Amino acid sequence: MNKQHIHDRIASLRERMAAQDLTAIIVPSADPHLSEYLPEYWQGRLWLSGFTGSVGTLVVTADFAGLWTDSRYWVHAAAQLEGTGISLEKLAPSQPNHIDWLATHLAEGDSVAVDGNVLSIAEQDKLLDAFDANDITLITERDVLTEIWTDRPALPSAKLYQHDAQFVAQSATDKLAAVRSGMQEAGATHHLLSSLDDIAWLTNLRGSDVDYNPVFLAHMLISADSATLFVDNSKVSSDIAKALEDSGITLADYDAVQDALSALTPEDLLLLDPNKVAVGTLSKMADDVGFIEQIAPSTLLKSVKSDADIEHVREAMRQDGAALCEFFATFEQRLADGERLSELDVDSMLIEVRSQQPHYVSPSFPTIAGFNENGALPHYRATPEKFSYLDVAEGEGGLLLIDSGAQYQNGTTDITRVVGIGQVSDEHKRDFTTVLKAHIALARASFPDGIASPLIDAICRAPLWQAQMDYGHGTGHGVGYFLNVHEGPQVIAYSASTPKERAMKAGMISSNEPGLYREGKWGIRIENLVVNTPVANPTESEFGEFLHFETVTYCPIDTRLLDKSLLDQVEVEWLNDYHRQVYAELKDRVAGAALDWLTERTQAI
Amino acid sequence: MNKQHIHDRIASLRERMAAQDLTAIIVPSADPHLSEYLPEYWQGRLWLSGFTGSVGTLVVTADFAGLWTDSRYWVHAAAQLEGTGISLEKLAPSQPNHIDWLATHLAEGDSVAVDGNVLSIAEQDKLLDAFDANDITLITERDVLTEIWTDRPALPSAKLYQHDAQFVAQSATDKLAAVRSGMQEAGATHHLLSSLDDIAWLTNLRGSDVDYNPVFLAHMLISADSATLFVDNSKVSSDIAKALEDSGITLADYDAVQDALSALTPEDLLLLDPNKVAVGTLSKMADDVGFIEQIAPSTLLKSVKSDADIEHVREAMRQDGAALCEFFATFEQRLADGERLSELDVDSMLIEVRSQQPHYVSPSFPTIAGFNENGALPHYRATPEKFSYLDVAEGEGGLLLIDSGAQYQNGTTDITRVVGIGQVSDEHKRDFTTVLKAHIALARASFPDGIASPLIDAICRAPLWQAQMDYGHGTGHGVGYFLNVHEGPQVIAYSASTPKERAMKAGMISSNEPGLYREGKWGIRIENLVVNTPVANPTESEFGEFLHFETVTYCPIDTRLLDKSLLDQVEVEWLNDYHRQVYAELKDRVAGAALDWLTERTQAI
Repeated sequence: MNKQHIHDRIASLRERMAAQDLTAIIVPSADPHLSEYLPEYWQGRLWLSGFTGSVGTLVVTADFAGLWTDSRYWVHAAAQLEGTGISLEKLAPSQPNHIDWLATHLAEGDSVAVDGNVLSIAEQDKLLDAFDANDITLITERDVLTEIWTDRPALPSAKLYQHDAQFVAQSATDKLAAVRSGMQEAGATHHLLSSLDDIAWLTNLRGSDVDYNPVFLAHMLISADSATLFVDNSKVSSDIAKALEDSGITLADYDAVQDALSALTPEDLLLLDPNKVAVGTLSKMADDVGFIEQIAPSTLLKSVKSDADIEHVREAMRQDGAALCEFFATFEQRLADGERLSELDVDSMLIEVRSQQPHYVSPSFPTIAGFNENGALPHYRATPEKFSYLDVAEGEGGLLLIDSGAQYQNGTTDITRVVGIGQVSDEHKRDFTTVLKAHIALARASFPDGIASPLIDAICRAPLWQAQMDYGHGTGHGVGYFLNVHEGPQVIAYSASTPKERAMKAGMISSNEPGLYREGKWGIRIENLVVNTPVANPTESEFGEFLHFETVTYCPIDTRLLDKSLLDQVEVEWLNDYHRQVYAELKDRVAGAALDWLTERTQAI
Repeated sequence: MNKQHIHDRIASLRERMAAQDLTAIIVPSADPHLSEYLPEYWQGRLWLSGFTGSVGTLVVTADFAGLWTDSRYWVHAAAQLEGTGISLEKLAPSQPNHIDWLATHLAEGDSVAVDGNVLSIAEQDKLLDAFDANDITLITERDVLTEIWTDRPALPSAKLYQHDAQFVAQSATDKLAAVRSGMQEAGATHHLLSSLDDIAWLTNLRGSDVDYNPVFLAHMLISADSATLFVDNSKVSSDIAKALEDSGITLADYDAVQDALSALTPEDLLLLDPNKVAVGTLSKMADDVGFIEQIAPSTLLKSVKSDADIEHVREAMRQDGAALCEFFATFEQRLADGERLSELDVDSMLIEVRSQQPHYVSPSFPTIAGFNENGALPHYRATPEKFSYLDVAEGEGGLLLIDSGAQYQNGTTDITRVVGIGQVSDEHKRDFTTVLKAHIALARASFPDGIASPLIDAICRAPLWQAQMDYGHGTGHGVGYFLNVHEGPQVIAYSASTPKERAMKAGMISSNEPGLYREGKWGIRIENLVVNTPVANPTESEFGEFLHFETVTYCPIDTRLLDKSLLDQVEVEWLNDYHRQVYAELKDRVAGAALDWLTERTQAI
């Protein structure tokens, strides 16, 4: 990115601000659906700042421009912002965030604009809390960006498609009925959904409007006797329109949602998730319509996969595991042959082997292939401009962290493995083994049915804490079923709050991904996906129901990186059992070098 | 208790309610200090209902009387309420509590009275939330109970005394300065303290107004340049008055606190803990005085014991351990001699041996000595009316759970041990060993400095959960330093919320007390006190600071109850290390049979 462009854009923005008497503008990384991956049209923060990270908030005043982002992006953001006139503001628990900054630096009577289309209701509440006390006005009705972004890209226009019927266990009609039960329980007359994965789940439709997540831009408004899907009608084939009609879902234009909400009356009560609905979507709604702010019923329903879904996921995992055997066999052979490979080669090789699997759709997130110090950046992404070769000096060694996954129509995968390159050291092994102990501790754990997910994180971290180690990210996130690789409500992270919506329930799929990151040296993470499963043949029902995890990712964990003396007998048994299972699941799906690799890498220790 | 008395009292109450046009009366178990142990004057709920449990809320209307209490008291309350006309209402997470009941059963325009002197601000907020929506009036200015309780006991009049100077590390002057720092940080001009242990800590004074907690009835009002102790002046010697004056603390009468608060103006900002201040205490305060509702600074300061405090506690623990050796040696000998002993004998023997130790003051809570099914009631208390003998049939066996503790001027103790009586079974051993695994898991754990205490509970419970077992109480509570055996802010209980006030800090003392309760059979709990201690010689400071626990309770854990095959090597080593330490700490303090018992019971397994 030419940094002069950034200067010019910020200067244009300031002109507009001055003309409209605005003291400050906030540009978040968001869209009207509060999605993780944004269509280009909504990448205004990137366009204005040049910062490519997925999370960051830009604030511009007449004499200040700053970008707040969290620690995983500090190195990256510092480089991209250098010379732009935009300062890097480090977002950390003890530091003032952009709201604190504005509350401190602005004066009574000042005005702050933020496009209501990219501001969640929950976020607006935080701004109002901070601004009201200081008599600062918040303006959400103006999109100043569009005035200066003359070549703003169009919204995406990819066609919707049906989630392949052989992989769909519940009809849209039945899902809609379940959502209506949830609305009734909450006492709501209407329910607005803007979150794209909820809408894709509910309609059994998929799309390609953003990278990695098979979703499409839409809103839904549901009442007891109607359901309207607001979507660009040109994306909808007549077959799909028919299917929607059969499910009791009416089509309307994407932009018609505001008008539809303007028809609500004070007798209505609108259920919505304040973190998942943008202020702008409600811009035409009357002020006296009542709200029920809570998690959407579909978010809870979607998180619990049916037995049929889980059976499909196991099959997707076998496909993915077979692809990974192909990858690892080829990768190790090419290295052994003396070929010089890079992190980018890893990415392209992985996409190549996965794309040959049945029902493959796309990667489920950008591959993280980070060698040595790059692996220590949990969200590293190699780019053609900046990547490393997997070079080690004679007699030396390094660690390559590979976090990757795919969208298949029969399941979404997400796996992290670490590969030793060259001669690994005792310190490498000690770190890797300690992370494996943490992974096994969670994989083996049982826990009360319904416990809030953050409360079990300590079981995973205990072996690392014992060695005075820790990692700065969560241990586990929910995973969709041919949907977003990150979904809620569960999150296995002790930093998260513990509301009852985060209860662990049978059928949820989560990641189990403890790690360890030594800045400037290497990163380690061992990630499998796990399914919440009732403990078989409960022997002690007097103490309540318990869940444990079924690990459904099938791929060897590199035993050459282990210091076996650090493992206890139970851990060794878990690992050997796991490898026995991986071999059994994959042996008939690979051949030749890949089978040899699988056989060798699943030997008991 | 003669049950006719209860009928008569409830009838008198209903007459008064009718005369005053009150639909309902709530009588909680509380006093103006929201204490755990109440002076008789404030035991109105007991007087009205005959229910002796420590926690319970009575609701009376014209045609209903019900008492809400939690599961530990259900058996007990059912027996005591039988024939009184008062129904037992089971308090449980999924059940309506007394507030829900009132909101459902009362009609618009109804009035509910509760004495504001026994209602916390936080509790009033909950009532108002529920009542406002239904147009029910809450009246807190009337004490209807006093009108009918003609022989209501007087308030206690025990003299205050100084906490022995040799055990006091910080002067009242310094503590007051620290509290004022906390007030300043919060932006408060004034601070009201009603919690008795906070006041005792802050003044370095102690009292005997209630059982078990060495505290005295008082309030304190602190500003930047004044501090007033509201206390019955007849309890205060001239020496103590002088000491208070030297610390900058003025004396005023106990009842003068309301008038003192009436002097606050809208320019003042009053810091108070809404869970620890009664509505009645603020009854004369102007409505336009601002509040800051948060935990009291002294609650946080008090929870962190100094190195000098902890050294005294270690000594108190040696005394307590020596007393327990005497107890166990005598107890086992008497049983071996064929003597028939009861749970009550255990209680009196424990008090006898402890009272011979230096600096002994009192028990720190009512001894729980529960044999077999009585042990399965976590808060069981044997009484002369109802207790068990430790009888077992030939060839049979049972478990005796003993939870007891003492107040010494140099520390507060709290310990639970389980004793096998007769021939214990494999099931006894399996349960005991599994609880010990949980105890050891927590005792050995390291965890990040500052983590919210509820988040580490899963480390303790994991071995029980693995066996599909659990227990219904918290794993650990804070413990005072010659103060309340239950103090905050930390609580190691996954059912608790995780605000930042619950952060674990070096110097906090907590209990480590996992358990297992088989209804109608037996109860097991293994409890030691542990001190949060920075990990010595941190090797991995790059991952932050870590704490671990120093176990400071010195008393053998009965290895005759173990199934060693269930313990792993690390657990065996912990137990042997612990017993080596117990022997070393106590061997020079006991002699004869007690030394023999100690020597035998601390042998390595």
